[in-house]
Amino acid sequence: MLLDKRIPVSYIYNKIKSDLFIIIIIGVCAHFLSSAFVDNIPSMPSNIPAFLGTAITVLLSFKISQSYDRWWEARKVWGAIVNDSRSFVIQLQSFLPNPNSPVITTLAYRQIAWCYSLGQSLRGLDPLEGTGAFLSKNDVSHLAQHKNKPLALIQLNALDIKQLYTYNEIDTFKHTQLDSTLVRLVDSMGKAERINSTVFPKTYRLFLHLAIYLFVITLSISLKEIALIYELPLLVILSSIFLLLEKSAYHLQDPFRNRPSDTSVTAIARTIEINIRQLLGEKDIPDPLSPQGFYLL
Amino acid sequence: MLLDKRIPVSYIYNKIKSDLFIIIIIGVCAHFLSSAFVDNIPSMPSNIPAFLGTAITVLLSFKISQSYDRWWEARKVWGAIVNDSRSFVIQLQSFLPNPNSPVITTLAYRQIAWCYSLGQSLRGLDPLEGTGAFLSKNDVSHLAQHKNKPLALIQLNALDIKQLYTYNEIDTFKHTQLDSTLVRLVDSMGKAERINSTVFPKTYRLFLHLAIYLFVITLSISLKEIALIYELPLLVILSSIFLLLEKSAYHLQDPFRNRPSDTSVTAIARTIEINIRQLLGEKDIPDPLSPQGFYLL
Amino acid sequence: MLLDKRIPVSYIYNKIKSDLFIIIIIGVCAHFLSSAFVDNIPSMPSNIPAFLGTAITVLLSFKISQSYDRWWEARKVWGAIVNDSRSFVIQLQSFLPNPNSPVITTLAYRQIAWCYSLGQSLRGLDPLEGTGAFLSKNDVSHLAQHKNKPLALIQLNALDIKQLYTYNEIDTFKHTQLDSTLVRLVDSMGKAERINSTVFPKTYRLFLHLAIYLFVITLSISLKEIALIYELPLLVILSSIFLLLEKSAYHLQDPFRNRPSDTSVTAIARTIEINIRQLLGEKDIPDPLSPQGFYLL
Amino acid sequence: MLLDKRIPVSYIYNKIKSDLFIIIIIGVCAHFLSSAFVDNIPSMPSNIPAFLGTAITVLLSFKISQSYDRWWEARKVWGAIVNDSRSFVIQLQSFLPNPNSPVITTLAYRQIAWCYSLGQSLRGLDPLEGTGAFLSKNDVSHLAQHKNKPLALIQLNALDIKQLYTYNEIDTFKHTQLDSTLVRLVDSMGKAERINSTVFPKTYRLFLHLAIYLFVITLSISLKEIALIYELPLLVILSSIFLLLEKSAYHLQDPFRNRPSDTSVTAIARTIEINIRQLLGEKDIPDPLSPQGFYLL
Amino acid sequence: MLLDKRIPVSYIYNKIKSDLFIIIIIGVCAHFLSSAFVDNIPSMPSNIPAFLGTAITVLLSFKISQSYDRWWEARKVWGAIVNDSRSFVIQLQSFLPNPNSPVITTLAYRQIAWCYSLGQSLRGLDPLEGTGAFLSKNDVSHLAQHKNKPLALIQLNALDIKQLYTYNEIDTFKHTQLDSTLVRLVDSMGKAERINSTVFPKTYRLFLHLAIYLFVITLSISLKEIALIYELPLLVILSSIFLLLEKSAYHLQDPFRNRPSDTSVTAIARTIEINIRQLLGEKDIPDPLSPQGFYLL
Repeated sequence: MLLDKRIPVSYIYNKIKSDLFIIIIIGVCAHFLSSAFVDNIPSMPSNIPAFLGTAITVLLSFKISQSYDRWWEARKVWGAIVNDSRSFVIQLQSFLPNPNSPVITTLAYRQIAWCYSLGQSLRGLDPLEGTGAFLSKNDVSHLAQHKNKPLALIQLNALDIKQLYTYNEIDTFKHTQLDSTLVRLVDSMGKAERINSTVFPKTYRLFLHLAIYLFVITLSISLKEIALIYELPLLVILSSIFLLLEKSAYHLQDPFRNRPSDTSVTAIARTIEINIRQLLGEKDIPDPLSPQGFYLL
Repeated sequence: MLLDKRIPVSYIYNKIKSDLFIIIIIGVCAHFLSSAFVDNIPSMPSNIPAFLGTAITVLLSFKISQSYDRWWEARKVWGAIVNDSRSFVIQLQSFLPNPNSPVITTLAYRQIAWCYSLGQSLRGLDPLEGTGAFLSKNDVSHLAQHKNKPLALIQLNALDIKQLYTYNEIDTFKHTQLDSTLVRLVDSMGKAERINSTVFPKTYRLFLHLAIYLFVITLSISLKEIALIYELPLLVILSSIFLLLEKSAYHLQDPFRNRPSDTSVTAIARTIEINIRQLLGEKDIPDPLSPQGFYLL
Repeated sequence: MLLDKRIPVSYIYNKIKSDLFIIIIIGVCAHFLSSAFVDNIPSMPSNIPAFLGTAITVLLSFKISQSYDRWWEARKVWGAIVNDSRSFVIQLQSFLPNPNSPVITTLAYRQIAWCYSLGQSLRGLDPLEGTGAFLSKNDVSHLAQHKNKPLALIQLNALDIKQLYTYNEIDTFKHTQLDSTLVRLVDSMGKAERINSTVFPKTYRLFLHLAIYLFVITLSISLKEIALIYELPLLVILSSIFLLLEKSAYHLQDPFRNRPSDTSVTAIARTIEINIRQLLGEKDIPDPLSPQGFYLL
Repeated sequence: MLLDKRIPVSYIYNKIKSDLFIIIIIGVCAHFLSSAFVDNIPSMPSNIPAFLGTAITVLLSFKISQSYDRWWEARKVWGAIVNDSRSFVIQLQSFLPNPNSPVITTLAYRQIAWCYSLGQSLRGLDPLEGTGAFLSKNDVSHLAQHKNKPLALIQLNALDIKQLYTYNEIDTFKHTQLDSTLVRLVDSMGKAERINSTVFPKTYRLFLHLAIYLFVITLSISLKEIALIYELPLLVILSSIFLLLEKSAYHLQDPFRNRPSDTSVTAIARTIEINIRQLLGEKDIPDPLSPQGFYLL
Repeated sequence: MLLDKRIPVSYIYNKIKSDLFIIIIIGVCAHFLSSAFVDNIPSMPSNIPAFLGTAITVLLSFKISQSYDRWWEARKVWGAIVNDSRSFVIQLQSFLPNPNSPVITTLAYRQIAWCYSLGQSLRGLDPLEGTGAFLSKNDVSHLAQHKNKPLALIQLNALDIKQLYTYNEIDTFKHTQLDSTLVRLVDSMGKAERINSTVFPKTYRLFLHLAIYLFVITLSISLKEIALIYELPLLVILSSIFLLLEKSAYHLQDPFRNRPSDTSVTAIARTIEINIRQLLGEKDIPDPLSPQGFYLL
């Protein structure tokens, strides 16, 4: 997540440098070609590029809006994970006869591990990194056979809850109530995976780039009588704004790629760890994750 | 689902070739007619086509947005199917006294068959293709009489769960909790069928095409004094962008038509198969479905 | 529901013929008045009508979008009715000791009658037409006293389910689980009635028409030096597109008016009948409703 | 709710007469000032007001859309109240041993009173008007001490339902199922109160008016060479459309203010009364509320 | 929350004074530079700034719309808190044998404290301010160890509800039903925290400001032949409208910052206090919070 701090120019520049290079080439070529053939090439009415610019803005606005929705949905899913993780622990303490029972710690720690593991696996990193402190040896060996580690962790919790029912620690109602919480966690996991694995319809991006290039060409022809030194900055700045908006949208729409614009899943998992450990009455609580410069992962 | 790979130009070209042909004919005719009668035909102020272009963009933006919503809803429905299939198996293992009971395998396999069958039937293909390994002979003969195979599969699972209750394997609570999961699956099935069977209001498409043709005609008249060699590429590129966006939207809005832009239901069903078989503790797990060039079905 | 087939021109023409007539009168009058006083009337800059056209498009786009949402919500409500009708029958078969009990048929047939009756009553037609085969004489005489027939049908089902509980056919849980299904059906019914009885804010339509007339007048003045034979087709086609879009939106926003653009409630009720009768194991199943030319009711 | 009937011009005129007066003053002043100093004041390019007009339309479209959403949400909330009121009575009849028990009438009548009372209190009118026939003396005296009458009515129903449980008329399940219905009613009440008490961000309205005035001034300067008799009608009609749209949105966004554009809460409460009394088997049913000219309250 | 009253000009002016200063500097510089080099600098077609202005409006409209959604979601979350707090107390009175039991007061008071505490902690203020009257000494000392005070308060209520179950005051059903209410409260808390801690994608703001500055420069060049005294007010007013809209959106998107445009969480908490204390039958009820001039916190 980008923070509300000064963003380095280099970060922004790096986003669009290759596209910008293409724009400059197109602009310079179009300028020289149309200057060379200035008498042959008819004049372009200036509202052709102006209308194209408006059209690009409207399409960009659609794209930004859908990308924002994906990003915001990803954040909502992780918000739901925070809520259900907290509720899960409070439910265990409220449902089990002994609120300090060690089985609560086992289940709650596994839930913490699940949060870290889900974040890592969405980002394509090692899904067990940072979960060591929260899992038993048995758990780790059980996970080894599973491709989808977070799903296996939920299965382990479901089977442990079933033991509580078998040993009459909870009745069948509380069993189903806890099961409903697990169902919500499975839902959140699946939603995050869905956002991660669904490619935003690629053709829009293609046609948008095509439209931006066409905009540069028509604007450049329309301004052909103006010296390159005045025309080029205008071309570059206008198309930079388009390209930067498009690129920001492109990054937002995939919020689990280990990039500065990601949803801050590690920081959220840490918050969950802090909350759960305080609910368990522990004293030695870690600090929240600190940002890396202008962003928080 | 189109992947984030290079899309062949032929794929894009094939989408619009017939419309493009009409556009070229219109453009050329309008050009020659207006050149022939250049003195009679009054000049068209260039902001008439510019405004028309903006109007088309705004309407296209509405259409793209609604089509995207249908496509995204279809993906969400299949995401919910993933989640509920996983939860269903975890619930069975958590609710039945013996988590390795063969009845769990029967129910879980039928759920896998349901996923493949729903995907096939939405696409209008043979709804039982690929389900053979997961269904008993009895199941297959029972399905023969049913028009809606996936609905019949859910009915079979509901009746088997009822048996579990009758034989006291689960109590009435867990019966209703499992029933709630089946209700959600029936909901997802119905939602996908709804998207599939509801025709997007056809008149918009008609009026949009009408507006694009009018745009080409007015632009062509407005540029009548310009040589055809400069005018035609502009006409063609501008209207191609409109047509391509419209066609992409048209394809997105029907995501179960066995086309490259489809929701990748077979791949999702395979993921569910993998997840469920790992939850059952099986060793011999198939690989995820691999893409066919630039798309995944 | 309009099908994805060729729509007769007469259908489209009839939608807007009266408005079109007004437009032509306005256009011709404005043309002759401004030609007559061509020296007195100052020239209208052509971006006044162009801006008005853009403004109309933006407002139309809002209207189309809200109308589409109402239409889509209506379709979703009927999709939910499909799902809950199917689930209702599956639940009865799963909850009652005997899945072939005649009471299931009674309840399921009443549910079919409810679907047909709700569709008819939303369209303002005879709410009992086509329900005869599914209701007993007692039911019909009970309904006679009720103004809201579908609500009375749900009440009958609720009281029959209560009988099942009183005679210990189902326990209190399953009673409440079935009650939850009835609550969802009451919700769907109320949602459809809400869409049907809520008038879309009328003033927007008024102001939109006003704006379209103003557009025609300003465009006509702006083009006053052009011969009527060139000007009128442009005026007529441009305003036709606006009027057709507005009219399509107007029709979409009230999807239960017995019009070709209606939600196809009768066809959906037929689908439900087919599904339910197959779930009951019946052999003599009716065919799906066939379309009436270019639409399906 | 405005009906789909002819709306009196006076109603529309009254909405904007004060704003219109300001517009005329601004227009006339701007005209004379710019005519007086016609040589000093430079000419305004006509696409400055045209762009401003487009900008105003886009912002208006945002405002209309959010206001419409509030209005539609208000209608949805009242639709949910209809559904839950109907379900509440059907549940009581299905859950209590005797479906004609007088306690059902007491609870159902109190529910009717709640609907009328909530509508009145949202509109800032006497919250007990029209509820006399449905409440006992005890109820009325209990309500006297409460500031929030509808909340107190729900509390009374909750306590009566508890009595049913205490006297073993319903079991603990049905108690919680009825409690869930009450929770939904509390939710609907709170949602309506939220819409009613939340002021739409005021600054937008302010800036929108500012933009409309600026539009009038720039347009007036841009048309300064045109006689006032041609210019003023254009100014007035264009800004009227903006002002009327803005005012309609302003009225829609607060749908409980005892205005013609209100959600028709009294008529809805009457519908609920009719439905509930028919469900109770009563014969002497009142008629639906009839509209007051062009609107229904 | 800003009220529907006259907003002081100083409030509005202070929002944008620094940005306005930059705009004036840019405008004046651009004017003098382009006047100085009036022969060298080519003329800027006036539809370049006009198109830029439209583009800015479209992007602003996206930003306003998303900010409004965050603000409205925040209000909805607090509306849900109102509803669940009321339902919680009504449930306790309906579920416990003695509706005047002191434990209800303890739980209800803690719920009031939770509302105040959540509001304070979202705003970064002392989370226990104003909660003294509603918490026991034990509660206060328990909270001392917790970083997230509202979460700890919910935990305390959950453990007290568990006591009710242990002492057979409520059965296991009512325990789970109350637990569901607590789960919803945990959800609402988490949702508010999510809105509070998620930074709106910063890059949009940056690019929007960049576009506004570019708009000022191009407009200023396009109007270079006009005297500064006519040009500057136009520049300033046009860009003020953009800047004010942007700033309003910026403030709306973070509704828990102790600013006049905040969601009025303290006033809502007071309403909850009033409602709950009336439900408890208390006589000495505080007044609603009164506004501070033109806003309510």
